[in-house]
Amino acid sequence: MKFKSVGKDIRVSKPDPRFARLLLEQFGGANGELKAAMQYFTQAFSCKQPYPDKYDLLMDISIEEFSHLEIVGATIQMLLSGVSGDLKASADESEIMQTMNGKAAKESFMHEAMFNPQFAVLSGGGPTLTDSNGNPWTAAYVTANGDLTVDLRSNIAAESRAKIVYEYLMSFTDDPYVKETLRFLMTREVAHYQQFEAALNSIQPNFPPGVLQSDPRYSNLYFNMSDGVEIKGAWNEGQSTQLREEWQYVAEPLEKVKKSNGLTECEPEGTERTEKEVLQADKALAKERSEEIKQATPLKAIQWSTYGE
Amino acid sequence: MKFKSVGKDIRVSKPDPRFARLLLEQFGGANGELKAAMQYFTQAFSCKQPYPDKYDLLMDISIEEFSHLEIVGATIQMLLSGVSGDLKASADESEIMQTMNGKAAKESFMHEAMFNPQFAVLSGGGPTLTDSNGNPWTAAYVTANGDLTVDLRSNIAAESRAKIVYEYLMSFTDDPYVKETLRFLMTREVAHYQQFEAALNSIQPNFPPGVLQSDPRYSNLYFNMSDGVEIKGAWNEGQSTQLREEWQYVAEPLEKVKKSNGLTECEPEGTERTEKEVLQADKALAKERSEEIKQATPLKAIQWSTYGE
Amino acid sequence: MKFKSVGKDIRVSKPDPRFARLLLEQFGGANGELKAAMQYFTQAFSCKQPYPDKYDLLMDISIEEFSHLEIVGATIQMLLSGVSGDLKASADESEIMQTMNGKAAKESFMHEAMFNPQFAVLSGGGPTLTDSNGNPWTAAYVTANGDLTVDLRSNIAAESRAKIVYEYLMSFTDDPYVKETLRFLMTREVAHYQQFEAALNSIQPNFPPGVLQSDPRYSNLYFNMSDGVEIKGAWNEGQSTQLREEWQYVAEPLEKVKKSNGLTECEPEGTERTEKEVLQADKALAKERSEEIKQATPLKAIQWSTYGE
Amino acid sequence: MKFKSVGKDIRVSKPDPRFARLLLEQFGGANGELKAAMQYFTQAFSCKQPYPDKYDLLMDISIEEFSHLEIVGATIQMLLSGVSGDLKASADESEIMQTMNGKAAKESFMHEAMFNPQFAVLSGGGPTLTDSNGNPWTAAYVTANGDLTVDLRSNIAAESRAKIVYEYLMSFTDDPYVKETLRFLMTREVAHYQQFEAALNSIQPNFPPGVLQSDPRYSNLYFNMSDGVEIKGAWNEGQSTQLREEWQYVAEPLEKVKKSNGLTECEPEGTERTEKEVLQADKALAKERSEEIKQATPLKAIQWSTYGE
Amino acid sequence: MKFKSVGKDIRVSKPDPRFARLLLEQFGGANGELKAAMQYFTQAFSCKQPYPDKYDLLMDISIEEFSHLEIVGATIQMLLSGVSGDLKASADESEIMQTMNGKAAKESFMHEAMFNPQFAVLSGGGPTLTDSNGNPWTAAYVTANGDLTVDLRSNIAAESRAKIVYEYLMSFTDDPYVKETLRFLMTREVAHYQQFEAALNSIQPNFPPGVLQSDPRYSNLYFNMSDGVEIKGAWNEGQSTQLREEWQYVAEPLEKVKKSNGLTECEPEGTERTEKEVLQADKALAKERSEEIKQATPLKAIQWSTYGE
Amino acid sequence: MKFKSVGKDIRVSKPDPRFARLLLEQFGGANGELKAAMQYFTQAFSCKQPYPDKYDLLMDISIEEFSHLEIVGATIQMLLSGVSGDLKASADESEIMQTMNGKAAKESFMHEAMFNPQFAVLSGGGPTLTDSNGNPWTAAYVTANGDLTVDLRSNIAAESRAKIVYEYLMSFTDDPYVKETLRFLMTREVAHYQQFEAALNSIQPNFPPGVLQSDPRYSNLYFNMSDGVEIKGAWNEGQSTQLREEWQYVAEPLEKVKKSNGLTECEPEGTERTEKEVLQADKALAKERSEEIKQATPLKAIQWSTYGE
Repeated sequence: MKFKSVGKDIRVSKPDPRFARLLLEQFGGANGELKAAMQYFTQAFSCKQPYPDKYDLLMDISIEEFSHLEIVGATIQMLLSGVSGDLKASADESEIMQTMNGKAAKESFMHEAMFNPQFAVLSGGGPTLTDSNGNPWTAAYVTANGDLTVDLRSNIAAESRAKIVYEYLMSFTDDPYVKETLRFLMTREVAHYQQFEAALNSIQPNFPPGVLQSDPRYSNLYFNMSDGVEIKGAWNEGQSTQLREEWQYVAEPLEKVKKSNGLTECEPEGTERTEKEVLQADKALAKERSEEIKQATPLKAIQWSTYGE
Repeated sequence: MKFKSVGKDIRVSKPDPRFARLLLEQFGGANGELKAAMQYFTQAFSCKQPYPDKYDLLMDISIEEFSHLEIVGATIQMLLSGVSGDLKASADESEIMQTMNGKAAKESFMHEAMFNPQFAVLSGGGPTLTDSNGNPWTAAYVTANGDLTVDLRSNIAAESRAKIVYEYLMSFTDDPYVKETLRFLMTREVAHYQQFEAALNSIQPNFPPGVLQSDPRYSNLYFNMSDGVEIKGAWNEGQSTQLREEWQYVAEPLEKVKKSNGLTECEPEGTERTEKEVLQADKALAKERSEEIKQATPLKAIQWSTYGE
Repeated sequence: MKFKSVGKDIRVSKPDPRFARLLLEQFGGANGELKAAMQYFTQAFSCKQPYPDKYDLLMDISIEEFSHLEIVGATIQMLLSGVSGDLKASADESEIMQTMNGKAAKESFMHEAMFNPQFAVLSGGGPTLTDSNGNPWTAAYVTANGDLTVDLRSNIAAESRAKIVYEYLMSFTDDPYVKETLRFLMTREVAHYQQFEAALNSIQPNFPPGVLQSDPRYSNLYFNMSDGVEIKGAWNEGQSTQLREEWQYVAEPLEKVKKSNGLTECEPEGTERTEKEVLQADKALAKERSEEIKQATPLKAIQWSTYGE
Repeated sequence: MKFKSVGKDIRVSKPDPRFARLLLEQFGGANGELKAAMQYFTQAFSCKQPYPDKYDLLMDISIEEFSHLEIVGATIQMLLSGVSGDLKASADESEIMQTMNGKAAKESFMHEAMFNPQFAVLSGGGPTLTDSNGNPWTAAYVTANGDLTVDLRSNIAAESRAKIVYEYLMSFTDDPYVKETLRFLMTREVAHYQQFEAALNSIQPNFPPGVLQSDPRYSNLYFNMSDGVEIKGAWNEGQSTQLREEWQYVAEPLEKVKKSNGLTECEPEGTERTEKEVLQADKALAKERSEEIKQATPLKAIQWSTYGE
Repeated sequence: MKFKSVGKDIRVSKPDPRFARLLLEQFGGANGELKAAMQYFTQAFSCKQPYPDKYDLLMDISIEEFSHLEIVGATIQMLLSGVSGDLKASADESEIMQTMNGKAAKESFMHEAMFNPQFAVLSGGGPTLTDSNGNPWTAAYVTANGDLTVDLRSNIAAESRAKIVYEYLMSFTDDPYVKETLRFLMTREVAHYQQFEAALNSIQPNFPPGVLQSDPRYSNLYFNMSDGVEIKGAWNEGQSTQLREEWQYVAEPLEKVKKSNGLTECEPEGTERTEKEVLQADKALAKERSEEIKQATPLKAIQWSTYGE
Repeated sequence: MKFKSVGKDIRVSKPDPRFARLLLEQFGGANGELKAAMQYFTQAFSCKQPYPDKYDLLMDISIEEFSHLEIVGATIQMLLSGVSGDLKASADESEIMQTMNGKAAKESFMHEAMFNPQFAVLSGGGPTLTDSNGNPWTAAYVTANGDLTVDLRSNIAAESRAKIVYEYLMSFTDDPYVKETLRFLMTREVAHYQQFEAALNSIQPNFPPGVLQSDPRYSNLYFNMSDGVEIKGAWNEGQSTQLREEWQYVAEPLEKVKKSNGLTECEPEGTERTEKEVLQADKALAKERSEEIKQATPLKAIQWSTYGE
């Protein structure tokens, strides 16, 4: 991992326990560095053998995110400087309390501690593997679905969220060193976004994700579900973005459902795709993808790496 | 909500507790209907006032997903038919056990029940708000970041995952009614995908998500982190997908970091963007977005709906 | 859902991020509106076919709770007005910092943000699907046990908790608009409480919940477990509330257990129920309930709704 | 705790790892013994000083539930007999594998183990603190709201759920010892139900829970939210169960909301309660309850127990 | 449980809602009293029959920890005195607000409430079963692996963590009564540490934990994984602490792996243990442990306690 | 990370979805490789500057555990070979179903899939970041308390648990390649155990963990809490393991508490430590530890790494 080396120069101007708490969002939060690292790492297993180039991409970025996790954790640790020293001095507190000075100091310490009590009473002044509200990191944040055209889209979205969280964080510190670090990290998310997008583009066809085509009877309906105001936009009139079908605006979904006997008697409209073509496409693509994978994963004497070859 | 009406005709051929368990993945799972419904619903609050057209879109789809949640739940309930009747007959079991017949029936019932014990001993034969492994649904699945260009990307990815899960599910049932239902639901995810994509395209500029531009020193570097094999692809050579910068492949990240004094002495390469332009763009976009929002949300006498106007 | 329409007029006097955090308790908290909506929705599946009247009741209240969820979310969004605008202006902050004024504003913003950091760095100024401490909503809050006499009691208790939480919340705001909204929501919980109680009363017998009767040897014992003080009350002397048995106060549980050979040699006391009667009641009720359900759920060609009939 | 003594005689006829898994539902599940014990224990703190009689009741039942937790855990441990012995013999397995006999035994062992893998690979053949699906117990199951009329209703509902789960469990075992144990535990829940009900009745007034009265404009409305079928019952016509107001059936909620300007211009109907009386009742009850509590909890020199008095 | 009796005198000098929040860490936190109590309780089941002396030890300490849980909960309840009284007076608030005095009081109350909103709006002024950040207690904190030499080590570590958390907590209060209580509790963890250590020492051999010996090819390698600086210490040079093998420092793990064909061609170095001896030790110990357990747990007619013997 | 290189040769003989599920316990389970890696990584931050040698040790082992995570994940992926290919072929299934052959194959596939439905319907045949019961990994498994003598004990216990889980797993597979891998991983835990033990021994004094000494009045009491049988052992008679005090067996804790006025009037017995010495030791150690830390962490111009020095 060579964490020190692949990272960057990390500094803080002075301790700031309040910002340390905010920054936890990117250490152990839903869109933070651990989430990113573990997501790409977990996805990588599925594509090691059929798609070694994508495996390499996912592992490169996963490890870079681990190095970012170290950058974020180190920054938090430095922003908390002093807290652990104070805790170790706890035996002296009877002394401190004999002076007004001490009282104020303790009060101030207490107040700071309240921003994230676990820095004070659990971690002894180090980062905790939680988000900014103290929720422990959970693998529920991670998505890995074994289909690269799905996983890469998950990653593009994940990088978008990580980017905006760094942007929000930058509003809450004036420390120029910390801002420099945040800007670096934010920028890397922008780079990764484009890397995943390029990888997605290199797989064709990639829409819809997976193998099965959509049913032409339902793929271009827009149901007006929420209320009487009918707002029109590119999402419910004109052509759809990928299949280039004409959107069918269903202003009164209830009527539609009743008239079509629970949608069982719908006919495709605004599209030239036919059921027959769809089934053929399904079969052809299924065969292609399935063979690709089966070829890559012989069912016995399976090995992962190849030493001595 | 008019659940019955906006849904579709739902049937099952015969009970199948095993498939009922699998189907829970789309009832209370990470990419299921409740996740989708609650994600769009939560995102909608942020854009009600500045972007009423996107609010309408998010609410339309959110409510459609709730109606899908009912479709999935009703299917599970029907696949479990018989379980609840058997539980209510429990007082008879001493009788049943006096015959071999009864013993076998009980054994078989026991075996089925084992596939998801909570159908048997907790929910009395109804759906549980969990995924297929029994994990209770958690809001950790939901992402809503208050920036539409981020949220719409999260939704495109979410629809991709929901689509592939329906595709996987279709491999595990032969019931033609259930397959028809799954195919309908899968297709709607394909429609929503395109609706969200159209909405994203209608916001310009939408890259990078948020307001702040990326730092030209770091936005087109590719770090070769994972191992000696250097695999090249559209993600680390040629132009980047959005900013159209030239990828800079860093084959030896450690060397780069050391030579640049922890990346503090990097100069932008392969890009024409300058620091000055970036800062100007930041300011301009910040001003635009901020005023848009401030205008829409007067700081007092705030009201949500407008009756009697 | 027609959220706007079925809700009520919602206003706030001015932004109040601190109260916004408290109010999250009813948005994504253990006794909040999402919990209520999802609990009744999940319970409804089990009674759709055998008890269509109760299905209707559960769905009516479930959907009303969803509309309350929107009311609460909209109130939180309005209480946070200004936060999202400030975040979008983040690019301006170098300017702001050149004036003392700016520093104070930033400090104050920072302080407010600390009350719930995720409003600031995660949701961009919108509601999060969590409780007031930031815990993501979990389906562990929801109970649905497939027996209406159990589920309705769960609901009566749930409405009680929701009522008291609104009552507590009312102590923490002086905004007359917000108070009016809270009082409306609190009152609706009182209405629902009585609706569920009426539904429970309409099912007879409803005690004990379920089918099986209790064992007369153990149903009226009171074990004095905690300490030497023996406090008497209606719960351990006189008649029990439902079965009208005489409470038997066991002052020395250890002695009782030893003397009765681990309770295996107990005889019923203070009751006229006999083992024989109990077994008969079990069978009779089991038969009744089981047939009710079996009749309603034919084991094949099952359908949920009936279009075209 | 004297677990052995306050419990009862516990036996099983023979090992049964499958039923052991089901029984976990009452060890570490949402309605199990740990939940009950911790719920009453946590509630007890709030009423120790103002209501010592209810404190005693809550602690008596809490400790009884802990003793039930031991009964359930011991039963699970005995149902798993053999598993731990087999694990300790793992070093012998090369031997076992040389015979067909061994292969079959291992296969069968493997199959049983699959029903709950954690018995095999995590706990070494002992109970785990989870529900039957392996979810770790969480305090999200526990409710304690500091108002006795709320907490007692939560407990009545909790006992109902625990009762039905034992009833369901009884369908899945034929072991007469285990059935006897389950019936004992089920019966105790029936007893506790009545004890909590008696305690609730002893507090007057107890409706609505808490202090604040409901708003007469909204307390007897029934909103027909779900669909066109209007099913009537005791919950939307006639008098309400507690306040004895006449239910007002709102067949078209949208119309009502629009006509009343977002419900702001409603007048109370079907009730004789007036706003003025409500406010008086609020104040009177608030004063009574508040003084009760303040008297019991002097603001300094506070102590919990009173030794040497 | 006799909580009052086995506890100790508990007092607080005056209410302190801020410290109450910190103290939650030991009520419902990861290293708190409930965790300890439930961990030893759960472990006890596995050793009841083979090792009754260790069962007794685990149950003695488990119950002591429950009594500590009550001490911590009672202290929190007293530190919150006043909060529940204020909540009950909520109906008076319109009065309060007519005076400046009231406004300030309300503001201050509001501010305190913010430190843990759930004291104010959820629990009505009582302890909540969470840690200091409001995370609900989870059984994920508990470890019980069915092997006493493992479980006792888990307990020694758990007591160490509990001790340091009490030490940290002592820095944040000046209340002499509370400090006395914390010091008592901290000291008991030191006592338990030594009790578990003595129990571990009484089982021989106890290294490695479990039955199977380690593979001599890999048991004394030290891989230099993190970076070029090679720091030496007792953990990578000289003899290992238990097996007394000579540490083999692998400065270049990559080279080692490549040369040894993926570690498949390693030979043991720095140790006298041979593969043959290891396998013999495995079998001997497996036989011993397995029989110990099998003897104690006859496979039928199993009973837990022995009344009347 | 160079995962491929620092790992070892990994193979499986043939697919085995059932064992793949069991093995998840060490991928995303409570004692698995991710837990170990993240625990040591998180602990490392606190000791980077004061104790660079321990930082190096923690990072070396953390990264080794990451490489083990890859080994485990790769093994699971290979054990699932075939699953993903079958999913991709889903479009063919109408064909398959026309033959008996196909029906049986599908049934068998369905049955295997049931052992962990998420392999089938969520991950598309890859590892999921969960334990063997499907619980998502949570940071609640990780402990890092900022005191090395505590953290190292946590690690010794963690390695013990990881060792026993590998031992249990070895009983459930006969694949010689998989067994070789498991034995390698198990052995590494034994090595790490001894490395952490050596590191702990190198810090003196290390008992009690932390700074504060225990109170001589309570440090050697043994409370007989569970029942009348008084079992004696090295943990309640003779000298305590570390402080070498004489255990004081309190046979009747209630009596002791009453006589000592709630333990307020206890005198130290069986120990020569005095209150005065304890306070002196507290101060001396506090000073030493506090200065150590303060020296290492200057309060401004803080930097983590030192490029160009």
